[in-house]
Amino acid sequence: MIIGILGPEGSFSEKAANQWNKVAKLRYYDDILDAVDALLRNEVDTSIVPIENSLEGSVTLTLDLLMEHQLKIIGEVTVRIKHCLLSKGDEIKIIMSHPQALSQCRKYIKTNFKDVEVRPVLSTSLAARLASESKEIAAIASRESAGIYGLRILDENIQDVNENVTRFIVIGKNTPPATGNDKTSIIVYLEKNRPGALYEILGEFAEKGIDLTKIESRPTKKILGDYLFYIDLKGHIEEKAIKETLEKVKTRVGMLKIIGSYPAAKNPG
Amino acid sequence: MIIGILGPEGSFSEKAANQWNKVAKLRYYDDILDAVDALLRNEVDTSIVPIENSLEGSVTLTLDLLMEHQLKIIGEVTVRIKHCLLSKGDEIKIIMSHPQALSQCRKYIKTNFKDVEVRPVLSTSLAARLASESKEIAAIASRESAGIYGLRILDENIQDVNENVTRFIVIGKNTPPATGNDKTSIIVYLEKNRPGALYEILGEFAEKGIDLTKIESRPTKKILGDYLFYIDLKGHIEEKAIKETLEKVKTRVGMLKIIGSYPAAKNPG
Repeated sequence: MIIGILGPEGSFSEKAANQWNKVAKLRYYDDILDAVDALLRNEVDTSIVPIENSLEGSVTLTLDLLMEHQLKIIGEVTVRIKHCLLSKGDEIKIIMSHPQALSQCRKYIKTNFKDVEVRPVLSTSLAARLASESKEIAAIASRESAGIYGLRILDENIQDVNENVTRFIVIGKNTPPATGNDKTSIIVYLEKNRPGALYEILGEFAEKGIDLTKIESRPTKKILGDYLFYIDLKGHIEEKAIKETLEKVKTRVGMLKIIGSYPAAKNPG
Repeated sequence: MIIGILGPEGSFSEKAANQWNKVAKLRYYDDILDAVDALLRNEVDTSIVPIENSLEGSVTLTLDLLMEHQLKIIGEVTVRIKHCLLSKGDEIKIIMSHPQALSQCRKYIKTNFKDVEVRPVLSTSLAARLASESKEIAAIASRESAGIYGLRILDENIQDVNENVTRFIVIGKNTPPATGNDKTSIIVYLEKNRPGALYEILGEFAEKGIDLTKIESRPTKKILGDYLFYIDLKGHIEEKAIKETLEKVKTRVGMLKIIGSYPAAKNPG
């Protein structure tokens, strides 16, 4: 079993992969696009990529890839994110990290490093690697990265809000069987912005008591103001109520894409 | 009249500001946070910041600032975005731009500049300024930036999808009177993820035939899976149907914040 993830070593994606499968071999990629491509090219058996963070919201690139390609979500993992400030030196001139990590520590940086240059890079662990090459660079990254890249931990838990959890999805080829505690993810296009169209669709779910855990709009990329809706609901596509409701919804919308039924994540690790 | 915008000169924000008010004085800021801060500190009379792009979706920082501060949307402007590749040299080693612009040209870069380093910076016009300092740097920025920073236009209209429009909001202090073609923006917190709660709220609007032009979820930043909803609707808060419906909605939700009633934008300029 080979899992494709965002690298290099020490990334939060690696944490997610270890939580999902302790014994799998990991293959590291430069960005989310490449990690998903690897699965499409059969270079890996599954890929694990971030989809949502409790502070920053959705990773929109991941949402867009789920729409563009024939991918199946086969699982989800949640990881508690604790950012550290790591460096070899003391006189920091540049702080590097992934843009989402920089956002999550925005206030910390403004307060403590007002005149330092902030430079976004492709991943938190790449930032750590770069910090290992110059004393003037500090990285915002995981505690694990300090060990891997020989950096000192200058500060810990520096994110602006303490509760910081990232949800990763496991992408693969076959829908796992129902476990009794599952989620189903769909993408719906309502066709034209008819007033009340979304209301009607939500009514179908409400009528059957199906709990929606997430609803999010994304642009169709055609016209400004034209949206797709990403909906997560509780239940498995094999359950009668879910299956029948989705069939009914399908007749009322422009497009319905089922992107996976999978076991719901346990508490964040 | 002084308008605060994202700079430096030649930014798409400048285009938006010129569209909104041709004679106003412009003051340039490094990032969205600073442009909004300037308004809160009364350094400018209004600020104009991007809120949504037809390809990339919402500018989440802007959404978050609308929740955090007492700001009023007093207008909106839409601008057609045409990205150009600008440089002084021919042998490009680094391509710089704002992260959203880089995303909008992702396929173009992958196809034409596979081995070139891609570096996100704070704005498209900053990228242009940096490109004017080194022949090895190309910027993805507006056509106007080429003139301002003395760069050659190597390629035009390089965004992956041709329809590329950004919506800017004008933030100020006083709600403008109704014009007959207005929009109202609100933020709603449903309190606990009760199944069907969103459905009930949408029902209030549907019942009165109020058209929702946008609905988007953002994390509350407390717990993963807990969301605020940003809703744009057609109509002005002074209209009876809108006012009454919002009063009714208010009694059914944990929080309702009205962030502005303003004239709807004309076609993108």
